[in-house]
Amino acid sequence: MERALDLARNGLGNTWPNPAVGCVLVAADAVVGEGWTRPGGRPHAETEALSAAGARARGATAYVTLEPCAHRGQTGPCAVALAEAGVARVVVALHDPDPRVSGRGLEILRKAGIAVETGLHGERAARLNAGFLHRLRSGRPRLTLKLASTLDGRIALANGQSRWITGPQARGFVHGLRATSDAVLIGAGTARADNPRLDVREGHETPRPPVRIVADPGLSLPLTGHLAETAGTQPLWLLHAAHDHDPARAEALRGIGARLLPVPRDARGALELPAALRALGDAGLTSVLCEGGGRLAAGLIQTGLVDELILITAGKVIGAEGVPSVGPLALTDLGAAPRFHPVEHRLLGEDVLTRWEPRPQG
Amino acid sequence: MERALDLARNGLGNTWPNPAVGCVLVAADAVVGEGWTRPGGRPHAETEALSAAGARARGATAYVTLEPCAHRGQTGPCAVALAEAGVARVVVALHDPDPRVSGRGLEILRKAGIAVETGLHGERAARLNAGFLHRLRSGRPRLTLKLASTLDGRIALANGQSRWITGPQARGFVHGLRATSDAVLIGAGTARADNPRLDVREGHETPRPPVRIVADPGLSLPLTGHLAETAGTQPLWLLHAAHDHDPARAEALRGIGARLLPVPRDARGALELPAALRALGDAGLTSVLCEGGGRLAAGLIQTGLVDELILITAGKVIGAEGVPSVGPLALTDLGAAPRFHPVEHRLLGEDVLTRWEPRPQG
Repeated sequence: MERALDLARNGLGNTWPNPAVGCVLVAADAVVGEGWTRPGGRPHAETEALSAAGARARGATAYVTLEPCAHRGQTGPCAVALAEAGVARVVVALHDPDPRVSGRGLEILRKAGIAVETGLHGERAARLNAGFLHRLRSGRPRLTLKLASTLDGRIALANGQSRWITGPQARGFVHGLRATSDAVLIGAGTARADNPRLDVREGHETPRPPVRIVADPGLSLPLTGHLAETAGTQPLWLLHAAHDHDPARAEALRGIGARLLPVPRDARGALELPAALRALGDAGLTSVLCEGGGRLAAGLIQTGLVDELILITAGKVIGAEGVPSVGPLALTDLGAAPRFHPVEHRLLGEDVLTRWEPRPQG
Repeated sequence: MERALDLARNGLGNTWPNPAVGCVLVAADAVVGEGWTRPGGRPHAETEALSAAGARARGATAYVTLEPCAHRGQTGPCAVALAEAGVARVVVALHDPDPRVSGRGLEILRKAGIAVETGLHGERAARLNAGFLHRLRSGRPRLTLKLASTLDGRIALANGQSRWITGPQARGFVHGLRATSDAVLIGAGTARADNPRLDVREGHETPRPPVRIVADPGLSLPLTGHLAETAGTQPLWLLHAAHDHDPARAEALRGIGARLLPVPRDARGALELPAALRALGDAGLTSVLCEGGGRLAAGLIQTGLVDELILITAGKVIGAEGVPSVGPLALTDLGAAPRFHPVEHRLLGEDVLTRWEPRPQG
């Protein structure tokens, strides 16, 4: 199963809206076939493993990180395929809560006389597919907020200079995060100021680069620069205010290949972030990495939409004039401050990474 | 020697201007006497251990964390005392670079026919007495800057509310830091806003509470409140501008028991911080813990006076209106930002502690 989990990891960020699954077929203590969900979610891991094993699948044990599917999509159901191949035993890490599967995959296997076991490394499988499970549960992708700041919480000098706050190891780590996320999200201010590439490099590769999303209520994204000019090769989606945009500008942005997702405005005139994330969930995304800026970070934190916060602290000090990592929150009581608890801390070269998850108010 | 180092630690923060030393006398594989430098620096560790051992010191081995002294101060030189007691062998962790000792202690021992070894756990002994060694080398106490902030680098709400940013474990840790520091330093703004007790509590004790120092150029400290009212029981020192204070106010502050240390002003009218720290070194302090606020922290960082930076990051977010942990630095180039490298990271309850040391610019 550990091998199956490792294989599944290959699909992370690439299989949406499907889960990233791994499958290993073992006969007489030897691996006879293995596979993982391919980019775009097809073929499924089981299909790949069965086709690699061929006739050797008969009598084998299949280790699968998620309950095999029971519904006929573009391919036939994997549970049926496993049964037809003559697999004798299936070990499943995690039930698939997708209403089209949810126990029916296991039922098909059992009815075919196959021995079924579940739960082996179930927690690890759940962590691996946290985004997929989150979307099924909430309708929204799982949101990771990355803050990369100095010791004093700054992300740039007052003059905007921000290269480089963190070191090469931290930058490599962020490219790895991007590679395993379905999408990367930034605010319109950051898009205008930095016009970042938001691609995957620094030693990381991905067969399906992450969707780049800009929260851009007024569709102010320039038609020139990295983001716009690469919209044909790496998807570029714009979350914009639903009813008040300039049709010509929308047309021009569509013309360069951008996809426009309309979202209602909230009481303060900003994009309604829960609605924005639901729109991204409806579009199939299961995991989104937000890379700033401070205003978008503040909005996501304030609305409780941050599922995981990754803080990379660089051993530098910029001082109070610097650009803050999180924008205004209008707090008047410390008891109401959004709270997180630490789940990981480690060195990233000369920087320190801490990972935090939301904690109920109290 | 490990036991001797543990004993020495008892003296940390209490022995200034003397080092914190530990001594263990061993005869026939049994401890026959042990001691550590007492509060105020007298009696010395060796005196304590010899007096505990009595006649059993004859032929024993002495483990001492620092070279025994060779100069006649209030007590006779320890090197002579060890020789007169008939100790057969002395194991020393670290040479004492104090010009009054510096090898002469070892020489006295060797001339008395005692076997002398040096260097055992030398690095640990040097870390333990980092403040004492720093003062000998630079004339200034070793300065530790503590920043306790939210994930976004804030130490209070815009309205000043700061109780509590960090959790109980972090507060306990800070009281432990205070107990092992010779002095605690804050800025005048923090003194006026919070009028903190700066004492040692939360399960920590110290026979000699840390000196409380306020960087208070204009001698603006209120004569009421925690700080002033306890000046009789826990020392209160005020670093003030040398030539332009109100004599009546100075008299009133002396009247409540405060000690006034005059310091020149720098070009911008603030206290000249290197001179301030030299004054504290001249007064005998070997280690100072700065607990803020942001403006004093910025000044110390900017002048390169921070020897160790302890950042306690709480899992809370306050937002950009909050009070920043470090004041303005007037940077125009990121390459000129003061740099630190991480030497420790660990959990403190729900907070994360990272420890940093200065790194050369480059």
